[in-house]
Amino acid sequence: MNNFMFYSPTCFVFGKDTENQAGALVKRFGGSRVLIHYGGGSVVRSGLLDRVKASLKAEGIAFAELGGVKPNPRSGLVYEGIRLCRDEKIDFVLAVGGGSVIDSSKAIAAGAVYDGDFWDFYSGKRIENALPVGTVLTIAAAGSEGSPDSVITREEGMLKRGASGDAIRPRFSILNPALTQTLPPFQTAAGITDIMAHLYERYLTNTKEVEVTDRLIEALLLTMIHEGPRVIADPDNYEARANIMWAGMMAHNNSCGVGRSQDWNSHNIEHELSALYDCAHGAGLAVTMPAVFTYVMKHDVMRFAQAAVRIWGCQMDFAHPEATALAGIEALRAFLISIGMPKNFAELGAKEEDIPRLVETLCRGNGRPGSISGFVTLNEDDCAAIYRMMV
Amino acid sequence: MNNFMFYSPTCFVFGKDTENQAGALVKRFGGSRVLIHYGGGSVVRSGLLDRVKASLKAEGIAFAELGGVKPNPRSGLVYEGIRLCRDEKIDFVLAVGGGSVIDSSKAIAAGAVYDGDFWDFYSGKRIENALPVGTVLTIAAAGSEGSPDSVITREEGMLKRGASGDAIRPRFSILNPALTQTLPPFQTAAGITDIMAHLYERYLTNTKEVEVTDRLIEALLLTMIHEGPRVIADPDNYEARANIMWAGMMAHNNSCGVGRSQDWNSHNIEHELSALYDCAHGAGLAVTMPAVFTYVMKHDVMRFAQAAVRIWGCQMDFAHPEATALAGIEALRAFLISIGMPKNFAELGAKEEDIPRLVETLCRGNGRPGSISGFVTLNEDDCAAIYRMMV
Repeated sequence: MNNFMFYSPTCFVFGKDTENQAGALVKRFGGSRVLIHYGGGSVVRSGLLDRVKASLKAEGIAFAELGGVKPNPRSGLVYEGIRLCRDEKIDFVLAVGGGSVIDSSKAIAAGAVYDGDFWDFYSGKRIENALPVGTVLTIAAAGSEGSPDSVITREEGMLKRGASGDAIRPRFSILNPALTQTLPPFQTAAGITDIMAHLYERYLTNTKEVEVTDRLIEALLLTMIHEGPRVIADPDNYEARANIMWAGMMAHNNSCGVGRSQDWNSHNIEHELSALYDCAHGAGLAVTMPAVFTYVMKHDVMRFAQAAVRIWGCQMDFAHPEATALAGIEALRAFLISIGMPKNFAELGAKEEDIPRLVETLCRGNGRPGSISGFVTLNEDDCAAIYRMMV
Repeated sequence: MNNFMFYSPTCFVFGKDTENQAGALVKRFGGSRVLIHYGGGSVVRSGLLDRVKASLKAEGIAFAELGGVKPNPRSGLVYEGIRLCRDEKIDFVLAVGGGSVIDSSKAIAAGAVYDGDFWDFYSGKRIENALPVGTVLTIAAAGSEGSPDSVITREEGMLKRGASGDAIRPRFSILNPALTQTLPPFQTAAGITDIMAHLYERYLTNTKEVEVTDRLIEALLLTMIHEGPRVIADPDNYEARANIMWAGMMAHNNSCGVGRSQDWNSHNIEHELSALYDCAHGAGLAVTMPAVFTYVMKHDVMRFAQAAVRIWGCQMDFAHPEATALAGIEALRAFLISIGMPKNFAELGAKEEDIPRLVETLCRGNGRPGSISGFVTLNEDDCAAIYRMMV
């Protein structure tokens, strides 16, 4: 196991009706003038926003609000949020929504106390200071509720980049599984896929002797395999929603990924798809993961065989470990299709003729050296071959 | 799943040579005048204490020191530590040792900023304020490095009681698995047993639909089953030590126990043994757990069958689930014996004729109503029967 630091100081408040504690939690963590940041109409229509406001009012906390966050959140709204924070002397940013809203809130929180352009943080500068952030989560997927990360897209050049720093870890995150019951099945399934991808990206490691994190990752994947189909079949299943929501946080706060190298090539390969076609990140991952895993399988057949046996319940073929390894990947593919995810470029809205362009941006964009690295280093030919497997 | 709050703000610094970061971490978390608190000679003989002091000196941090903590730490030394903190204007308590040292440090930290008797906290008063605490852990066992709890024994009446509060959660904990390589095998095995008990106490729940925490607990138990025998066979196995050390923290910071009722009857029944015979807590648990589990098995046969199949790899006997449930308990018993733990009263140094006295203190002491409650409520007859099963 490699040396590591693990720091996850977020206070998680989990369960039914917990959004009503938003005001008390803002107060506990030092907020007195709040920016409520959210996305589209669903948090308004459902009454969630009103409940959060009532909770703030009950504690005598003043607030401004800024809606309009879109999936793959943009820098334009971040600049608007930063101005608003300064004009209104905001001292706490409260995200009410999913990963995009939380990431946008983190960017605003960092930018509001920074003299330069907030985009500096998305160009490599570490975030050292930020207004405190809290979240009320509405979808189990991105894990941003428990992470120090934020991804923002700059309109100019459609650059999608990440920033990081302990200062933007949420002070608290409110996780009420009931809030996710109204999600359309496709969004639920895309969230499930994203969570599973966060686990697989950590599972594919070149670090040896990592039994404890292997087992923890497997535990969370087994949970998703058990609960995913239940929640697709019955969207109102609170218990299944609850198990998925805690697994989603644990999948990405890195308690199961510490001390080991990780992959993240599937995420990199997918990011080009959601950037070009504006497809759901989870849907892109559903098409990407089986192709990537099949392509890199021979790098460590026994790791994929272990996944097949421990996660998917395959019988080990001791004479032909590759057959077992492949059976595990096929089980993942079949599972993702069964919950309603796309299986190829066509269903995703992607086009074979774009592959050269996808490969170019993937391997040469962001200053990359003609390849991407992770579990395996993949050059342009590799990436083109992987995209073709997805057609 | 029940509603819950989960808050674990400790910064964990894990790996080889990490004790040399003690000074930098004390500084990061606001300390300038430190009380170093430790136990017996091993941290002195090994040079660990000197390395920690050198690390403090390198940061220009002043310190006082107080050694002498014994297993089942006593209130006398806590009072001494509190006086020392006040005399020396200490602003940070640094524990260098195992669970007993950490628990004693937490008590000192709480008492030093409290006008009354620190024992108030061990008589039911919640700890709201304390000096910040940091730890350098030397044994994987108690989980106190990531918990808000402390257990202290008062000499008068030999009362062993617990206190709790977020204020005594360590600000940082340094976990260097190499520091545990010099432990005698018996202590290593007792630590492994304590960790496994923390997991079983959470596994035995009456809350339904808790797949994610079931799976996480199973993951950590599978890790212990894999790594335990390796570290007993080869005490210098750093990798096995590392996996056990992270599992030990995760077993008790409650990320795998949230949202579900827990048991803790095995701990309660054992506490009487270590109080009366001064045996190692883990050794007492090794004798206690199989007896308790066999006694309460019929309360939820399927839960014990699930443990047998998922944790111990037993084949499910679908016609006789009780046989499977029992096979899992027998597998636990055999495992604990295999790593060198005692199997009965005689090996523990306990006496059958003391059973009435044990039962009296267990069920009537600390204001208890003639029974103890958890997974199952156990009255005096039940507890006597369980102790007799251990003879």
